[in-house]
Amino acid sequence: LAKVIGWDIGGANTKATFLATRDGKMTALRTASKYFPMWKKPEELNAVLSELRNQVSGSDELDCVGVTMTAELSDTYRTKREGVNHVLAQVVQAFPLTKILVVDVNAELKSLEEAKANPLSVAAANWAATGWMVSKLLRNCIVIDVGSTTTSIIPIVEGSVSAAGKTDLEKLIDGELVYTGSLRTNAATIVNSVPLEGGVARVSSELFAQTGDVHLVLGNIKEEDYTVETADGKGKTRAESLARLARLVCADTETLSEDEIVQIANYVYEKQVEQITEGLSQVYSRVKRLTKREIAVVVTGLGRNFLGRKAAIQVGLNRVVDLGELVKRDIAKVSTAVGVALMTASKLEGRPVQWTQ
Amino acid sequence: LAKVIGWDIGGANTKATFLATRDGKMTALRTASKYFPMWKKPEELNAVLSELRNQVSGSDELDCVGVTMTAELSDTYRTKREGVNHVLAQVVQAFPLTKILVVDVNAELKSLEEAKANPLSVAAANWAATGWMVSKLLRNCIVIDVGSTTTSIIPIVEGSVSAAGKTDLEKLIDGELVYTGSLRTNAATIVNSVPLEGGVARVSSELFAQTGDVHLVLGNIKEEDYTVETADGKGKTRAESLARLARLVCADTETLSEDEIVQIANYVYEKQVEQITEGLSQVYSRVKRLTKREIAVVVTGLGRNFLGRKAAIQVGLNRVVDLGELVKRDIAKVSTAVGVALMTASKLEGRPVQWTQ
Repeated sequence: LAKVIGWDIGGANTKATFLATRDGKMTALRTASKYFPMWKKPEELNAVLSELRNQVSGSDELDCVGVTMTAELSDTYRTKREGVNHVLAQVVQAFPLTKILVVDVNAELKSLEEAKANPLSVAAANWAATGWMVSKLLRNCIVIDVGSTTTSIIPIVEGSVSAAGKTDLEKLIDGELVYTGSLRTNAATIVNSVPLEGGVARVSSELFAQTGDVHLVLGNIKEEDYTVETADGKGKTRAESLARLARLVCADTETLSEDEIVQIANYVYEKQVEQITEGLSQVYSRVKRLTKREIAVVVTGLGRNFLGRKAAIQVGLNRVVDLGELVKRDIAKVSTAVGVALMTASKLEGRPVQWTQ
Repeated sequence: LAKVIGWDIGGANTKATFLATRDGKMTALRTASKYFPMWKKPEELNAVLSELRNQVSGSDELDCVGVTMTAELSDTYRTKREGVNHVLAQVVQAFPLTKILVVDVNAELKSLEEAKANPLSVAAANWAATGWMVSKLLRNCIVIDVGSTTTSIIPIVEGSVSAAGKTDLEKLIDGELVYTGSLRTNAATIVNSVPLEGGVARVSSELFAQTGDVHLVLGNIKEEDYTVETADGKGKTRAESLARLARLVCADTETLSEDEIVQIANYVYEKQVEQITEGLSQVYSRVKRLTKREIAVVVTGLGRNFLGRKAAIQVGLNRVVDLGELVKRDIAKVSTAVGVALMTASKLEGRPVQWTQ
């Protein structure tokens, strides 16, 4: 019998998964998520944690909370060490009487004391939690988790997470982290120019439009999926997204037609898929030497289909599985937090929790 | 006898030049500049104008003010039309009793009424003012004005501004506007990856570091030149810039050495020069068909030497002239406002004002 919350504390979003188990089997799973840009008011994190805790677990007593984070990269902190320590302190403030475990980059749970003693070993271990969870479902695959901000590409070989990189930097080199996402990515970081009016237009380097605008305009997401701030602080209608995209080439909706703006969005989309394709190819080229089997791709995150699946198919990996369909639950947008909750409950139970039928 | 102020109202900086003339000759020239991010409090522009006016002209009565702007592109406005009209309204509020003239994209001064009637004809005409000024000094040349945010490449042929594009979008296509600058440009819009630790690291798409950090770390600018906000809101010391640059590859100053971060800065610098080189090559390929003469390059703006001159020499244009040295005045950072003031005073005098010895 265990009641836990798994936390995924990102720079822009904080996510919680409540998991209750009995005799090694899941009896309840509830998730919640909140847009919380850490760099604005880092000292309010503990209040956000308490708020989400109430949403997912009500007044239930908890046996343990598990934590993973990427918020330590936020530029509110001088170093990652400072960031990790601050986030952990906020967790302690929100859960002063609860046991706290922290995911490390080897996909293991460390005690709070161990994490504090070696903060860099628990920085940006989100992929390890997601990978651990999938490794219990499929023995050989590549996970593509396309979040609002970043894309993690996680190789699972013979039932274990088999990452080439442990830190963000190593992963950026190895193709396992592609810093592109379905909502928050500045379009100007994806393209240097776009074809337009028979020429090639350079783009503005401001933050005028982000991928949320691209995918809204193309119908890849709905308004309610666009859960982050817009670049200009204005709304999330199609018209407002079109206006932001027009600004990418220093134009506006008066001087560019809707067709032309949609063409810009399509071009950015194509280039964003290419970013993921390149990372995936790099990871796949390593993994296929490790295993001779056919490799499935497991996609999750808000961008799992319009970015993750699309990239997989372009690389020639046609066996694509939606994690949500695999586990018959709508967990795409919170899969890391679910992974952390499963790791934590499994640790308490002394065996992997059974959570799929 | 004329007393005027020339205004260059940008999205991030507002610049003023007071110019007094007598019998067609300059008797006084004073400049001022203020970092004023328009998108934050657009309704305070008139107060900024009044403040700068006091700095440059004290209580002197003015015969006229001349205006050019790029602030209409700010995403505080729905369209450029709305932006131009708002900026003009703010100018009227600051100078209710003074004659107002507005530079248009044909390098001509229009009345306030004409400008209001055709707002798009006066949007982003800053290059026209700079070009007009240089065209009175050199008959055949290419001007490279590298500001904090953007680079204008302005061809002067046989004594006239000979721009292929009139709007920002046309210029982005024609190579006459390269949206890269010496301070405010997000490094992640310049590079997709950087060589590091024997590999190639993808970069974060956040606004973690900007060109101000690159050029400060490389010694291209001094702390006092770094006149815009930093990405993390922290200070402008070398150590703080190094920390921001480390974050570009999701690292920090604990895990990367200073040498490695300087290597990143150098790589971004090289790629930024390339951006300008490409625009310049495009403009030059057109201009050299128009004139058989050797073309000089006139550089101005904060980045005139470490970006403008460097790009010119890479293109093989070795006759590079610093505008400030040409006119024997330190006007590099306000050359557009000086151009507007000269256009305005010349219009009142009925002939080009003599302002160089």
